[in-house]
Amino acid sequence: MTHSSMSLPAIKLRLDVIFEVGRALNSAIDIDELLALIAGKTSELVSADRCSIFVVDGDNRTLWTKAQTGRERISIPIDSGIAGAAASQRAMIHVEDAYLDSRFNPEVDRQSGYITRNILATPMFTMEGELIGVLQAINSNRGGFSTTDMAMFDAIAGFAANALQNSLLYDELRKTFLSVIEVMAASIDAKHKYTAGHTARVATYSIGIARKMGWEEKELDALRVAAYLHDYGKIGIPDAILQKPSSLTDNEFSQMKSHAEITRELLSKMHLTKQYRDVPLVASSHHERMDGKGYPLGLAGEEIPLGARVMAVADVFDALTSDRDYRKAMEPKAAVELMQRQVGTAFDPEVFAVFEAFFEQELNFGTAG
Amino acid sequence: MTHSSMSLPAIKLRLDVIFEVGRALNSAIDIDELLALIAGKTSELVSADRCSIFVVDGDNRTLWTKAQTGRERISIPIDSGIAGAAASQRAMIHVEDAYLDSRFNPEVDRQSGYITRNILATPMFTMEGELIGVLQAINSNRGGFSTTDMAMFDAIAGFAANALQNSLLYDELRKTFLSVIEVMAASIDAKHKYTAGHTARVATYSIGIARKMGWEEKELDALRVAAYLHDYGKIGIPDAILQKPSSLTDNEFSQMKSHAEITRELLSKMHLTKQYRDVPLVASSHHERMDGKGYPLGLAGEEIPLGARVMAVADVFDALTSDRDYRKAMEPKAAVELMQRQVGTAFDPEVFAVFEAFFEQELNFGTAG
Repeated sequence: MTHSSMSLPAIKLRLDVIFEVGRALNSAIDIDELLALIAGKTSELVSADRCSIFVVDGDNRTLWTKAQTGRERISIPIDSGIAGAAASQRAMIHVEDAYLDSRFNPEVDRQSGYITRNILATPMFTMEGELIGVLQAINSNRGGFSTTDMAMFDAIAGFAANALQNSLLYDELRKTFLSVIEVMAASIDAKHKYTAGHTARVATYSIGIARKMGWEEKELDALRVAAYLHDYGKIGIPDAILQKPSSLTDNEFSQMKSHAEITRELLSKMHLTKQYRDVPLVASSHHERMDGKGYPLGLAGEEIPLGARVMAVADVFDALTSDRDYRKAMEPKAAVELMQRQVGTAFDPEVFAVFEAFFEQELNFGTAG
Repeated sequence: MTHSSMSLPAIKLRLDVIFEVGRALNSAIDIDELLALIAGKTSELVSADRCSIFVVDGDNRTLWTKAQTGRERISIPIDSGIAGAAASQRAMIHVEDAYLDSRFNPEVDRQSGYITRNILATPMFTMEGELIGVLQAINSNRGGFSTTDMAMFDAIAGFAANALQNSLLYDELRKTFLSVIEVMAASIDAKHKYTAGHTARVATYSIGIARKMGWEEKELDALRVAAYLHDYGKIGIPDAILQKPSSLTDNEFSQMKSHAEITRELLSKMHLTKQYRDVPLVASSHHERMDGKGYPLGLAGEEIPLGARVMAVADVFDALTSDRDYRKAMEPKAAVELMQRQVGTAFDPEVFAVFEAFFEQELNFGTAG
């Protein structure tokens, strides 16, 4: 069969299927759902019995099926079989009779009982030319793949490649960013040893409170970053103050307070995606107070970002319930009672009420009566 | 005109054009080139006189033409005209007679002398459902846009949206990563005040040498990151040692040396893309020596990553030519002469030869005879 031999209805049907793929690409859709849709539509377009979208793993050693029709997920060595040959030759491969082709690996058939006859496999590339996967179709329902099938297959590989690259880049962006933030947090904890773990606990408490307040996952993600970085400005405070085993003098205390301002200055130099755009302000406002007597800016009430009002409660609670050189940790319940006296002056009453509920459920380490 | 009225040759031609777009998406191609190709193919597909791909700017206030056929780049307010209406209604808009539609903004026509008759505009979304642009076609060459034109247009918008999102994500990933790295570097410079600017200078010298050695831009990018982070481990060194105005005792010096190991430990917790995967090893190996007597691992010769051999030269040169509390900066030429004695033992001879050439051309601050 060739392109020119296709009938008008057949070719219109194919055009409609391609339109469906295009519309799916222009909608809010989960990547797995999108790739499953593309695999299904590819089977329709080239009249194949099965279609798989293989993805190259991080180490460039294996191909695994991220989406497929009609079989289980599999993982194969990157240099194995027809998909592997398409990957290494960086070109489409068309096999008319698999069992006559020495590159074909019959192992999968042997395990599944399926009989592969013909195969189309084409590599998928990023816009930088890096191999990210292979699109594969098996067993034409019309006895063999035509040149039109091949042309269509090549085009669909491009659409799938773009969608896949998007999802990989999005994951990379998030993972890289969060891991670097964690390194920054760890480096502050290393500096300020007696509070080791403080950053992570403030993040845990803040997320716990905000989740109870109904925040969405993306907002929680941003709050986690702000919590991880809330003390980053301490990097600019001398060890002599940061690690002083006794109380600070007025002058030392005012130097110590500058960490909030340094946090804001350092973090505001970051290029942040929309989701994280408020991080510098939220992170640096955890010492603001509802009555406007906090620092660094002296914001009051709702001028203080909600995330910072949440962190203010989490930060003080963790400080009171941790050992210091000059005092022992307080019991959690006693800390909550002490903090209650500052509701409205230091702490946001609504946030504090949620914190108390969170405390009762999650943090009440068996000490309450 | 409707879908069903199209002739077989006409519809085959359209299928071929869509195949071309798919193949372009699956190739290493510059985003501007790709979007220009998509704009051109869209004009062909829907038989339009002009086609523009508008992109939403970062502040969500304007749409600007990132690719277009047949006219100059323009920028319009996001709520203006038919493109703006498609953006705000998040739906395709088809206008049969622009001058009878109150949403149409005749300003662009007025300035260019062009006469807009009919318009197709459809919004483009990320896979998270965020608006990123608008695809627009103007003036059907067949008197009006058909339902097939509209279906095709919708599909193409999906392909363009994916390509655009890719390019935006890639830019975001790079910008976010590099800006966070710069903040980390700045925070070390803040801690270690007498070397303010040291990190940036080591990066500049290293890039200068590596560029002369013929490195590619992506490799230079990774070397820049390694240089920015090479002293990050100093975050774990006490101020009393880091800022000591006199020479260090043996014990203090061995503590100081641990910064290289701390750099490696901290950085190896980062999730890095392939391009930056060697950064932790390169960054932490700048005190290794060719004779194996360096630290932290005692690597010798080619065991030391080339980037680290470059940074070793850059690092020592900057240290010698900077003031310290206990000595004045050396003249650059004298520093180079002093360093020559350690070629082969500390420094890689090939790297050093390139450094000397770089020094002659770029760093010889008018002091040489």
